[in-house]
Amino acid sequence: MPNSETIQTLLLVLDLAGTTVFAISGAAAGVKYRLDIFGVCVLAFVAGNAGGVTRDLLIGAVPPAALQGWPHLAVSILAGIATFSSYRYLERLKAPILIFDALGLALCAVSGTQKALAFGLQPVMAPLLGMLTGIGGGMLRDVLVSEIPMVLRADLYALAALAGAAVVVAGHLAGVPPSITTGAGAALCFALRMAAIRRGWSLPTAAAVDADRG
Amino acid sequence: MPNSETIQTLLLVLDLAGTTVFAISGAAAGVKYRLDIFGVCVLAFVAGNAGGVTRDLLIGAVPPAALQGWPHLAVSILAGIATFSSYRYLERLKAPILIFDALGLALCAVSGTQKALAFGLQPVMAPLLGMLTGIGGGMLRDVLVSEIPMVLRADLYALAALAGAAVVVAGHLAGVPPSITTGAGAALCFALRMAAIRRGWSLPTAAAVDADRG
Amino acid sequence: MPNSETIQTLLLVLDLAGTTVFAISGAAAGVKYRLDIFGVCVLAFVAGNAGGVTRDLLIGAVPPAALQGWPHLAVSILAGIATFSSYRYLERLKAPILIFDALGLALCAVSGTQKALAFGLQPVMAPLLGMLTGIGGGMLRDVLVSEIPMVLRADLYALAALAGAAVVVAGHLAGVPPSITTGAGAALCFALRMAAIRRGWSLPTAAAVDADRG
Repeated sequence: MPNSETIQTLLLVLDLAGTTVFAISGAAAGVKYRLDIFGVCVLAFVAGNAGGVTRDLLIGAVPPAALQGWPHLAVSILAGIATFSSYRYLERLKAPILIFDALGLALCAVSGTQKALAFGLQPVMAPLLGMLTGIGGGMLRDVLVSEIPMVLRADLYALAALAGAAVVVAGHLAGVPPSITTGAGAALCFALRMAAIRRGWSLPTAAAVDADRG
Repeated sequence: MPNSETIQTLLLVLDLAGTTVFAISGAAAGVKYRLDIFGVCVLAFVAGNAGGVTRDLLIGAVPPAALQGWPHLAVSILAGIATFSSYRYLERLKAPILIFDALGLALCAVSGTQKALAFGLQPVMAPLLGMLTGIGGGMLRDVLVSEIPMVLRADLYALAALAGAAVVVAGHLAGVPPSITTGAGAALCFALRMAAIRRGWSLPTAAAVDADRG
Repeated sequence: MPNSETIQTLLLVLDLAGTTVFAISGAAAGVKYRLDIFGVCVLAFVAGNAGGVTRDLLIGAVPPAALQGWPHLAVSILAGIATFSSYRYLERLKAPILIFDALGLALCAVSGTQKALAFGLQPVMAPLLGMLTGIGGGMLRDVLVSEIPMVLRADLYALAALAGAAVVVAGHLAGVPPSITTGAGAALCFALRMAAIRRGWSLPTAAAVDADRG
């Protein structure tokens, strides 16, 4: 049976894996906007950790997990340097990066929801904090390079995170062991996100609604 | 005589009313920048709640009120969907939206100041947190759509919030019942803001100062 | 021998001096982007205090020092008004402002590191919070005027802060009195930053790496 320690270890591994893939997306944005190596590493750290750090501030878990030890910092900096050194292959790596990004989203959404529940947030709010964990880093990354956050405009992204997070909360309410619901939630989020990419699923914009009606 | 419970209820009602009108302003910005329905709802939630959430983080009230239950979330999402569905009428609604926005500013400024005082902030800082409650959501809304926050450039806005907040603090120091000072402060803020809109009051910019002198 | 009170006073003086010079940089940006006098003062306060406020939120020191009394607010507003009134001399003052900015960076980096250590952060993370104290205000200033933060692109800046912060941590681990390491760390940061300005030192960008190889 999973105990508190198992959950802790699970959360840490999920966190670090999600951090790494998001950090690559941040570093790629930094290279694209011609930041220097320091700026690239900052954007890697921001994209990898800002979602979790914001979640931790909001639930009162200070200092945030990402600042309590070297692991989050280390994987972020490594991802930043690796991306900086091999940026010329990034275009060719577009497809795998999208897959890893979907994986990061799934991992962050479920781990963030678990942590929000562990800190006593209500079941209706916990999925939002999971979603924030998944999309917050990318949002701050885009704000720092003076772009409107991609997640607010693009295809099905945050909704996939929300669906995965909802599975975790449903399992929590039903008393299912966290390791099962975490896996199921992450799988659902990942599947939805990949389907959205392949099939071009997206949410309506007001302009689109207008065109439909007009 | 007003007691602690009365103040709590008053604060909640003011908070929710302010949240609703600001959420409409956020959703309208989202529609304007062609965000999808999710992005529109995020901007509604951000514009409606970021001021209060930032205030709560700064005074140590975690988790922030807007994340403790469904009311703030519910009114924000409803405002987002309603605005998204009826965006084509927004231009025609420009005048009433300005009025509601002034009302939201007034309500947030006084409720934010009350809460800052309740958490023991010094009388000199409490109005600033009230003002932040009133303008923070709009600032983050503008940052997310990559605009310089309107409040930093436009006509008398934050100063109206500050004036209303100052009334609350003055009443607090003088021992006047909060329900009275809250009403008076909100009325002053609303009146100042409406007068600024109608008469085109604005604060000087350095360029204007230059032109005056040159 | 330095005691806790000495350190507190030292921290406050360093904080206020750093706040003032950064506030001038924020006000100058506000004037450049034609904000009104309120916007200029907000940008002065943000540039002067956002780094320290963010650090305090992250280490759990709420309400943040900058919001606990009038000194930070007062020096920020004064710096904002002074800059607003004399903006036409800013171009001529470019050189001294760069020097004061380097001084502010040095002061914030070392005082932020000291405070992070005092709140029990690990030696590996404390310099990052010192650096954040030094660069956070400028980053938020740039985000508010819809620019990519200068620190992510420009010449050696954050690295100078990090070097100064590392001296403080090394001294802390070695048991050297804080007043000595604070002075040494600030001097190193200031010297590095001035050298970077004079000699045009900067960090590589990916494009530069490409050009070297191509």
